[in-house]
Order: sequence, then structure tokens, then C-alpha cells
Amino acid sequence: MPKKMLRVNMTKLEAKFEDFPADFAALGGRALTSTIVAKEVDPLCHPLGPSNKLIFAPGIVTGTAAPTSGRISVGAKSPLTGGIKEANAGTPFSQKLARMRIAAIVVEGKHIGKDYYTLKVTKDKAEFINANKWVGKGLYNVYKELFKEYGNKVGICGVGIAAELMGAASGICFNDPEGLPSRYAGRGGLGAVMASKGLKFIIIDETGAPGVEIANEEVFREGIAKLRNALTTHDVTKPGGALNSYGTSVLVNIINEAGGLPQRNFSAGQDDRSEKVSGEVKAEEIKKRGGVRPHFCSPGCIIQCSEVWTKAGGKDPVGVLEYESVWALGPNCGIYNLDDVGELNRACNDLGLDTIETGDLLAVAMEGGLIEFGNGKGALKLMEEIQKKTPTGRILANGTGFTGQAFGVTRVPVVKNQGLPAYDPRAIKGIGVTYATTPMGADHTAGYAIATEIMGVGGTADPRDTKKSDLSRNLQIATAAVDATGYCLFIAFAVLDIPEGLQGVVETLNGVLGANLTVNDVPGYGMQIIKTERDFNKAAGFTEKNDRLPEFFLKEKLPPFNEVFNVPDEELDKVWGS
Amino acid sequence: MPKKMLRVNMTKLEAKFEDFPADFAALGGRALTSTIVAKEVDPLCHPLGPSNKLIFAPGIVTGTAAPTSGRISVGAKSPLTGGIKEANAGTPFSQKLARMRIAAIVVEGKHIGKDYYTLKVTKDKAEFINANKWVGKGLYNVYKELFKEYGNKVGICGVGIAAELMGAASGICFNDPEGLPSRYAGRGGLGAVMASKGLKFIIIDETGAPGVEIANEEVFREGIAKLRNALTTHDVTKPGGALNSYGTSVLVNIINEAGGLPQRNFSAGQDDRSEKVSGEVKAEEIKKRGGVRPHFCSPGCIIQCSEVWTKAGGKDPVGVLEYESVWALGPNCGIYNLDDVGELNRACNDLGLDTIETGDLLAVAMEGGLIEFGNGKGALKLMEEIQKKTPTGRILANGTGFTGQAFGVTRVPVVKNQGLPAYDPRAIKGIGVTYATTPMGADHTAGYAIATEIMGVGGTADPRDTKKSDLSRNLQIATAAVDATGYCLFIAFAVLDIPEGLQGVVETLNGVLGANLTVNDVPGYGMQIIKTERDFNKAAGFTEKNDRLPEFFLKEKLPPFNEVFNVPDEELDKVWGS
Repeated sequence: MPKKMLRVNMTKLEAKFEDFPADFAALGGRALTSTIVAKEVDPLCHPLGPSNKLIFAPGIVTGTAAPTSGRISVGAKSPLTGGIKEANAGTPFSQKLARMRIAAIVVEGKHIGKDYYTLKVTKDKAEFINANKWVGKGLYNVYKELFKEYGNKVGICGVGIAAELMGAASGICFNDPEGLPSRYAGRGGLGAVMASKGLKFIIIDETGAPGVEIANEEVFREGIAKLRNALTTHDVTKPGGALNSYGTSVLVNIINEAGGLPQRNFSAGQDDRSEKVSGEVKAEEIKKRGGVRPHFCSPGCIIQCSEVWTKAGGKDPVGVLEYESVWALGPNCGIYNLDDVGELNRACNDLGLDTIETGDLLAVAMEGGLIEFGNGKGALKLMEEIQKKTPTGRILANGTGFTGQAFGVTRVPVVKNQGLPAYDPRAIKGIGVTYATTPMGADHTAGYAIATEIMGVGGTADPRDTKKSDLSRNLQIATAAVDATGYCLFIAFAVLDIPEGLQGVVETLNGVLGANLTVNDVPGYGMQIIKTERDFNKAAGFTEKNDRLPEFFLKEKLPPFNEVFNVPDEELDKVWGS
Repeated sequence: MPKKMLRVNMTKLEAKFEDFPADFAALGGRALTSTIVAKEVDPLCHPLGPSNKLIFAPGIVTGTAAPTSGRISVGAKSPLTGGIKEANAGTPFSQKLARMRIAAIVVEGKHIGKDYYTLKVTKDKAEFINANKWVGKGLYNVYKELFKEYGNKVGICGVGIAAELMGAASGICFNDPEGLPSRYAGRGGLGAVMASKGLKFIIIDETGAPGVEIANEEVFREGIAKLRNALTTHDVTKPGGALNSYGTSVLVNIINEAGGLPQRNFSAGQDDRSEKVSGEVKAEEIKKRGGVRPHFCSPGCIIQCSEVWTKAGGKDPVGVLEYESVWALGPNCGIYNLDDVGELNRACNDLGLDTIETGDLLAVAMEGGLIEFGNGKGALKLMEEIQKKTPTGRILANGTGFTGQAFGVTRVPVVKNQGLPAYDPRAIKGIGVTYATTPMGADHTAGYAIATEIMGVGGTADPRDTKKSDLSRNLQIATAAVDATGYCLFIAFAVLDIPEGLQGVVETLNGVLGANLTVNDVPGYGMQIIKTERDFNKAAGFTEKNDRLPEFFLKEKLPPFNEVFNVPDEELDKVWGS
């Protein structure tokens, strides 16, 4: 049984399995979503109209025994940036999809009328079920109910209230192994694209799935062994290592020390109180409360950086509090209280919001005078406006740039209208080069220069050095390739430093695909993805002027080190040679 | 006493007279505002930050005896489009400025803190007066009070509540000869630029002004005679002619008949009820009520297309109800009642809003379900949200595109994010080419193809013919030149058909400037302005992809003639050869 694609027409409420095109054979994850978007979506279409398409694709090795490979990519034209978007998440949902040999789900058209639907996909069938009863409800309860209705073994993906508002800050939510609505393809407003089509949930029931076809078992197994060895020996990724012990939040103290942890809407880069929301404090607290740590986002992960944060006494599990979420909802809002941060993260998950965009927009709302910085309870109350679908809620649900314009705030940290993640580009220049030049809008994962500039992975680089075009480009290309495989980007920490690990990754791809790729093929593969994405953006009207940080980063000095973003435009343009 | 420029630094609260640069000698109006913006404003700056500048410039012959020449141009980087903007208005304010030999006021920087200021300009002095007492108040009463405070002979320009919200739909308001706040440089959110700097009003007291210097009185007088002759003989512009008798609203029936009068947010192009808000009905009604018609926007106008609309019994004068305003606030909202339209126009003037943008955003709000189409009282109530500065008000004050995004509406009639005027481009293609390709965003005045396509002025053209790049280009170039002179664009109706009239226009310019321009110099002069503007927009990140109409115009057929906008992209790109 070969791989197939599921094409879902929401205008006609039809879902049909199609042959997976032969020329897509080597594509998965981001390579596949971006290729289909570029091929089938008019770059000038309205992102919430019938011409946009929403693509779901597990990675090439997802669903196999390859460790740490449970990622799913989601692609479309973004209502936030107006350009192409790929957002990905780690979730059992992706593994189930892959094991059913569904290489992609392509959702197109737009349901006419106000009804919402659930798409239920089984081995032989895809059916639509009216989902109106879930409209306006929080996803924690809804996911619990959906698992009751469809059984504990399904995978769920869906959108929440923020997406019902067509909010450009809305993400697409996947269940974690506990069934919590906590694993998000968060960025770029893809939730609104899904909701605009009248699609509320996708339920994957893999009963009877054949599993992923492995073309060459021997090569595949050898590759796994090498990768496993790398992951279990590198300090960042190994069991008991930094990520495993403290999760991504291990970075709070490190980035604060570097003066690059944005405080109070990017008005400072350091605050002693940040330590109160650090990974170290959080891990301790989770242990005390009876939460879970470490934990995996999808079965088969070696790194296990995830966790289940709960209220005191292990109650009301939220899921993981990632570094970027803690920062966005914490220090960036002047909030230094893990309980507040946890509840804000719960609200994001419940409403179907990207945590980074939400933290950014809350901080902008604070600067606009809606509530004062540091007011965690007030921030939660503000998020109720989204739940109630009030005009304020509609403003907030549309993201950082939108909120800034509505409330007359000019310090608005966005690139291509997407809110900046947890690293101030004035203190750490390379990540700023990535923010500026990735086709995705401000996105740390697109070319994580922090690895080299701060963590010393893949070499070292002075954070203040402005010559970062090579670093950012190389990382962006490598990342695009990783995002196609289904592997978590965090394997890069290990394989950037351990060549045998990278060799293993390529062997697992060859094992699945029956291909003969070498390590040397990786850059070309990644570059092709980025070229596809940049071509789409160019056709959508983007130029090198979109590859710039907002004016205030160039003019306002960031305490305590009083740096501005001084990477010359020429250096930014050297990334892609435009 | 040579011409000078007044440079106003709002950061330092300093205003200084400067020499008018010799290389600007032949520049006025739009030529001057666009040149200064292009020279002094970073195209990537935040439009509401300290780096943007706001330029006021009367035209070359403004303030002289040249008829119909009381226009003022206002320029800046637009918070609505993100590109360069020139908006102009006819007002005695401009004539006073010109007679004081102030070629331009350049407002730069940004006041720190929440205070607002009035800038009072007299012959020798410019001073700042705290204006906080006017904040939050409607402009009808405020202008009345300002005239009491500063005397009846001053000219006033200012911004209202919409601009205090930093709304991208806010305009800059100039007084008419009756002192009413009804003459707007409306488009592109320039009101917000003014308010962002902390500047609320400019008061011009021309006591002791030397008057405009005329280099060659004889040539000047000859030119005036020729122009006057053209204006008084052409059917469109002559006393008792179409504009004089019915105002611009004479177009309501004509454009409705052509199937190009957009109804209910551009969902149809014709409705029999439109006749109820026609210029003919309005003129009759004004007579009955004891309003004023005809009327001029500034002294010395021959055409006199203006009017003073009032409530029954001549009470509560509003000022002019222009065709585009009547359409925007009327048929486009499904409203066919002149009293409702009049009160909505009053609300726009009172709040400091562009009427076209407001009509567009109200229709989008109706489509988004806030109120039903046709509900005039409901629309007025909605506008109170702006007055009260509620979150809904903040959404609306930011324009059509913003309102569409907030309320999840995808039929959003904007180009470069500026709302479309009163001619559906599916029924009348040439004006669509102008909407798409002018550097200004959707703007009928930028290249008024209607003149030729509907009115048979300057030749004739089939409205359905898609070959309109030449027509639009030629009109855009001629318009840019006219916008520099200070003449009202409406003189073009006469001088396009009467060559001697155009000759007269050039002679008046030569008379004032002591130049030797010929009619053949006009296209080059206009083209230079457009090149300056397009270069700015390019540096702000615009490409030919910004020169497109929204998707729905290409796909949704417009009843009753069921046309789509089928001008090929190549034809659009032929306008500027990009």
C-alpha cells in the first residue's frame, strides 16, 4: 500500500484519497507543505478565503522507530504575515497519520454558512461530522470530551475560540500523549485558516494502519543507532542533560545573564526577578506539585524536554511550559510568577492561541495602558475578552501588530507582522538576522543562532558580532531540511557537534525512502525548501524591505548593555544574496 | 520678502522659519510635499513615530486671483498604506498660508508625554499653546470656539477624536468659508500622523501678510482670462452647469445607471433607491431647508460645486455632502436616506474621519454582522463608539482593512489597505486601473478615468474596455501636476477639452514663478512627482504586487451586469512599465 494524500474540499464537504505524486516522493513535513502551498495557492489570495489551502504533513521518518521524530508540519498562506507559513509541533497525531501512510492532508475551499465540522479519518474513510456543539468552548474540556467520544487512541487536531474569531494569533492545537491540548503549530495564524474553512477538528483513528513503509530496514536501523548514540551522549540532549532536566526553560537564566531576555515589551534585556520563572525553579516546583518531568511530546523521544505543569497538588494539568512561552507570558509582561505564567499558558491552550504571539500582544496592550506591566491576574482577565468574543478580544486575537495599531503603540516587536520570540536581537545579533531574513516572519526556530552564539553548539560566535549572515543562512538551510524529516529540531544540538549522528539521520532517511542521500545532499535539500518559500513570498509582494527589524530596535538602546541592532542592511541581504 | 518654510519640531516644541530652498522654487502642493517626504522621511520608519514628518503646502498659484485654486496638500508616510501619501483639500486656510509666503510647514519629531498643542502662526512668529482642553471634543463645537478665541479671520486646521486614537481612517480637517470643519485632506490617516506628534491644531493669522509674489503680472492676468473663459464655458464647470447646480452628487444617478455604484459593501452595482440620495434630490432639499447651494470651498472659485447641507429648517449646518461621501455613507451601507447620510457625514467631520474610508468600514462592519445594512441610526450609534474611544471605536477608527480583519470579513474593498471610492472597478475598468496603480492606494482623484469613461471629457472610452493603462497613466500624470498648482482638480474637466484653458493654466504658473513653462512641460512635471512617490514606495517595500485589486473583484461578479475586474496584470504593469 503506497503513500497517499487526503484532499478535503470544504466547499463541497468532500474528502478523497489521492495517489501521492511520484515527484513528491522525497518530500515530507515542511518540504511537502511548502511545496504544495507554492504549487496550489495563489500568493495574492485572501488568506481566509476559499483559495487558501491548509496542508498537514508528518515528516519523512515520523511514525517509525527513529527517535524524537514525532513532528507534524502545517502550511498555508499566513493571515498574520501574508506570506507562506510552516508551523510544526510534536504530537502522537503526526505518528498516527504517518502510520496510516497519509503523506499529507490538503484542506481547500471554504464551507458556506456558519457550520463547523469535524473530519474523522480512518483507514478507508474520511467523514464529516457537525461540530457546532464545540463552538465557543475551551479546548481542555473539549479535548477531554472528544477523547470520550472517539476513544482514547485517536489523535486530535483542532482550533479554538481565537480561530473562531479568525484571529491571526490563533494556532492549530494537537494533543500531547496525555490528551492535553498543549502541542501547537502555533505561529502565523494557521488556526484561523482552518476555522475559515469551517473545519474545527481532525480526528485520526489509525486502527488497522499498515505502519510506515521502510524501504531498507538495515540501513534504517544502522542510522537509528548512530543518531541514538549522538542524542544520548551530547550534553544538551542526553538523558539527565540540560533539556531533559529542565526543559527549554533552562534558557531563562542563561539568556537573562546575556542581557537578551526581553522585559516589559522589549524595553530591557535583563531583570533579576527572571530567575523566579527559570527552568531550575520550575522543575523543582513540578516535582513538589506532583506534575510530570521529564516527559515526551510524542512516543519515542530520547530528549524528553517536555513536562506537565499543574496547579498545586497536581491539579488541572496544563502541559508543557516552554521557555518561549514562559518568557512571553512572564518577563515580557513584567510577570515573574510561575502560577500566573502557568494559568496564562493554560488560557492560550484553551483558547487556541500561539503563546509567543500572545505574550507579545499582552505586553503591547500593557504598554498601550490596558493594564499595568506585571499584572498577571489582569492579563488573565484580558484574555477572557477573547473567550467572550468582545471587540477587545477580537483585537487581541489578531496579534501583536494589530494590537499595537489598535492602541496606538509604536514599540511593536514584529517582523513580517509576526511577534518576536524570547531573544532580544540587540543583545544577540545572529538570532536577529534570522528573525529578519527567514521567510516565516520573526521565528527563532527557523535558524537558531542562539545555539552557536550562546550555547557553543556547532562552533562559537560572539553574540555582539554583527557578521552573522553565514551563521544564520547555514542554520536556516539545515533547519528547513530537519523540518522535512519529522525529527525534532533539537536533534540538531547533538548532530551539529557529532558528525556520526548526522550520518545516522541521513541513513534513516535513506532507510525509509530507499534513497542514497549523503550528508552533502542536506544543504541542497534545505535550500530548495527555502527557495520555494521565498519565491512564494516574492509573488506575494515581499522584497528585501520585509527582511528588516522594526525601527525601534535600530534606535532604542537595550539596557543593561545598551546595544542597538546594528547589523547593516547589507549583511542582512547577504543571507540570501538578494 | 521671499517664500519661506516653517519647520516645527514637536520634540523640542520649536518652530523656526527657514529659507525656501532655491531648488524647490518651482514646487508647490503635492510636488512639494512629496519631494520633502521623499527627501527627509525614512521609508521604513514607523508612520506614528518621531521619524515621520507631516508637510503642509499650498499650491503654486494658491492665494492669488487665479480662480478655483484654494487647495492645500498634506503629505507624510501614511499609517494606512505604509507608503507615501498626499491628500488635499480646498480651504481658505491654504490661501492665507500662501499669502504669508509660507511655502510649506514641516512638522517633525514627536512630543513626549500626553499633551496636545496648538501651533499659532502669524507673520513673524509661531508659538505653541496647550490644547488639552479640546481633547475628546467634537470639531463642530471646537472650531466654533477656536474662531471665538482666535478671531473670525484665522484659518484653522486640526484633528479630531479619531486621530487621538491614532486611527488610520482619520483625516486632517480644514475650515470652510463658513468656519465649518468640513474640508478634509481625508485620505491615508494623516490625522493620526498629526496627532501622534502632539499637534492638535494649526491656526493661521495672516494679518499683515504680503500676499503672493507675482513675477510677471501681465502673463499671469492673461492666463487667468483664458482659464476663466474655459471654466465659464465648459458644461461641467460653468455657472449653472452640472457641478454648480448639483455638486459632485450629480454622479449618483449617472454611476448607478452605469451599474458601477457599489451597494452594500460592493455586492451590487445598482439599486433603484440610489436616486433618493442623488444630487438632484439633494439640491432640491437644500433649497427647501434653507441651506446654501451653490457655495465655494474657498474664495475665488468659479465652479462652486460646494454646498451647506443642514437639518430641516436650516439648522445644524454640516457643510458639503460630496458624491463620494453620499455614496460611502449611503448606498454602500444600504442607506438611501439623505438625513441619515447627512448625520453620518456630520459625525465624520465631528470626529475627524475620512468619509470614504468610514463608509467603507461601516459597510464591512455591517457585513461582519455588527448592524444590518440600511440601518442609518445604527451606523450613527456605531460611530459613537469612536467618540467614546471604546475598543470597537478603536477598530473602526483604523479603517476598512483593519475592521475587516477584526470582524473576520473577507470581502474587503481596499488597495494598499486604503478603502475604495464610489466607482466599482468591475463596471468601470479604467478607474480600477487607477485604484490599482496610483502610489496613493485606492484613490479616484489620482487619475479620474471616470471623466473619459463616463462623462466623455478628454475623449471617450468604453467603461468595459480593459485597455486602460494609457488613459490611467496620462490622467495620473496630469493630476499630479494639477495637484502641485493649487488648482482644484475640477478645472481639468474644462482644460482637457479646451486647449486654451490649459494654456491659461500654464501662463498663470509662469506669471507667479517668472518661468517659461509650456504645455509640453506639464507631463514631465507630473511624471517627476509620481516617480518621486513610487521611489519612496519602493523603498518602503512596495512592488507591482501592491498594484493589484483584492481577489474578490477578480472572482465575484457584480450585478446587474455581472462583470468581474478582468484587466490583466500585464495591463496594470504597463501603466508604469514595471
